[in-house]
Amino acid sequence: MIETPYLLFLGDAPDMLAAKVAIGIRDWRPDHAVGQIRLPGCGADLGLTEMTLAEAKAAGAKTLVIGVANRGGLISAAWKEVLIQALEMGYDLASGLHNLLRDEGDLVAAAQTYGGTLHDVRVPTVGYPIANGVKRRGKRCLAVGTDCSVGKMYTALAMDAEMQERGMKSTFRATGQTGILITGHGVPLDAVVADFMAGSVEYLTPDNDDDHWDLIEGQGSLFHISYSGVTMALVHGGQADALILCHEPTRAHMRGLPDYSVPSLEELRDVALPLALRANADCKVVGISVNTQHLTEEDAVAYLSEVEARMGIPAVDPYRHGAGRLVDALAAI
Amino acid sequence: MIETPYLLFLGDAPDMLAAKVAIGIRDWRPDHAVGQIRLPGCGADLGLTEMTLAEAKAAGAKTLVIGVANRGGLISAAWKEVLIQALEMGYDLASGLHNLLRDEGDLVAAAQTYGGTLHDVRVPTVGYPIANGVKRRGKRCLAVGTDCSVGKMYTALAMDAEMQERGMKSTFRATGQTGILITGHGVPLDAVVADFMAGSVEYLTPDNDDDHWDLIEGQGSLFHISYSGVTMALVHGGQADALILCHEPTRAHMRGLPDYSVPSLEELRDVALPLALRANADCKVVGISVNTQHLTEEDAVAYLSEVEARMGIPAVDPYRHGAGRLVDALAAI
Repeated sequence: MIETPYLLFLGDAPDMLAAKVAIGIRDWRPDHAVGQIRLPGCGADLGLTEMTLAEAKAAGAKTLVIGVANRGGLISAAWKEVLIQALEMGYDLASGLHNLLRDEGDLVAAAQTYGGTLHDVRVPTVGYPIANGVKRRGKRCLAVGTDCSVGKMYTALAMDAEMQERGMKSTFRATGQTGILITGHGVPLDAVVADFMAGSVEYLTPDNDDDHWDLIEGQGSLFHISYSGVTMALVHGGQADALILCHEPTRAHMRGLPDYSVPSLEELRDVALPLALRANADCKVVGISVNTQHLTEEDAVAYLSEVEARMGIPAVDPYRHGAGRLVDALAAI
Repeated sequence: MIETPYLLFLGDAPDMLAAKVAIGIRDWRPDHAVGQIRLPGCGADLGLTEMTLAEAKAAGAKTLVIGVANRGGLISAAWKEVLIQALEMGYDLASGLHNLLRDEGDLVAAAQTYGGTLHDVRVPTVGYPIANGVKRRGKRCLAVGTDCSVGKMYTALAMDAEMQERGMKSTFRATGQTGILITGHGVPLDAVVADFMAGSVEYLTPDNDDDHWDLIEGQGSLFHISYSGVTMALVHGGQADALILCHEPTRAHMRGLPDYSVPSLEELRDVALPLALRANADCKVVGISVNTQHLTEEDAVAYLSEVEARMGIPAVDPYRHGAGRLVDALAAI
């Protein structure tokens, strides 16, 4: 559990693309960010209040979050001055970088001296159990994709936001580093040891009120041969009542696998649903989320209505048109 | 890679059930074992030559293998004397116990002093890559089960032995601790970090001669919600040309999951084959291996012939009747 609110560290990020984590926090948990702090030459700007460490501290910030990914995941020397100063001032640090805060001797020393915590969200900190498959109370929705990086996290976050707005009971359940930094907690599933993957998903989505929905962030794809085992653990550990199929219609091949074609939404449905039924006999495919960012508005609308007619369930781009119809579909279960 | 030959340490095993690892080595790699060494009160006997550490050393033994699993996976004080003495005499130690050799200070100290290696085969020692899905040369056969512990390792070992006898090119590829101790190498798949599971299977089964078969040890089951992600990584990382379906017909429910029924062989085929085709479009289900240990000979023969007639592919119990017909089926591909 990472203490909020945050000050978002953008470092010397060359552009907005490098600030994906910070953008996610700003967009989905604006209350978690008191402001931003940047180094000279930073090309990213979230439009948040520019603050010094002292100003943010005075505004209540508890954790300095590294909101930027640089090439190779390194913690550069230029950053160190700010990070160590933050620890001296009583901040915790949180990072999803490949290189770990805990492997930097000077940060470890400063954290010990000043009593701060170093959160490396890529690394599991819990001894997860082996999954027991016992039926849990409450409801769960899992986003599954035809490929990796098609908008599964965005879909779950957008549905959660819509449900909150409607006064429904819901919780976004993060399974990746960006999601964990956005919400302050979750399971870094791709770093969990094989035997405990499904158990970590059960741990993440425990018993809850009968009318409460967990919106579980998906990972990988059942069709992506590099990561399909991780997805399988989500399907079985998640015990989903509802699946949302996620798709990006312009992709030429599976991400990182030039020899593998992207399956159709029908193929995804026909593989994912029987597997999900093993863990929850009532599971249904309730909606489709399409990432239409590479289509014009006209083409996007045409594509969505064609898919919806073909598959008989709501098909929307939650970024373009909101997640309302997906939430309607959940509420109708 | 564990150095052979071994001396098999049976410790104070109460019975033969506790000596599963040693039995596996004796049965499948008899050339790997120069003899056995036991403590007072040991209730297990492999029928191998009883040897002191010195006698086995003189007979060429390089590694003392802990061939026994005791309750809780502990390395007991009673064992320590022999283990430390073995290190002093120049042995390496190998263990698949839950508690690690490397966590025992006295063993670590002795290994450092005398230059021995401590092999904890439960722990990966390789930085496995992320799977790339590139088509590899050579052929691969994977055993998949309706449940865990239905005879997948035994099936692959029996097929490998039969192929060796016929002069065919084959290699058993271990993916669990017992298999690794039997053969001296492999991947402890259930201990690999999620993102690298499929990559570790690719690493284990690299390019080979066009007429060479890898017999890949299966793990878990696509229908076992605790471990299905591990199985999925084998199906996609293994790029199998052939699947063998493994089954134990008397099981009342999935192992450790009283609320989950065991699927039929048809259900296993219909789930496993489409998933395997994603990684290898030529994959075929070629045979069925049934563990009939709880059936009489008459019932076993009747069951096998009924399954074979129903499914249209050879159905055998390789323990009872040999793996010949499964190998015939592979050779016919």
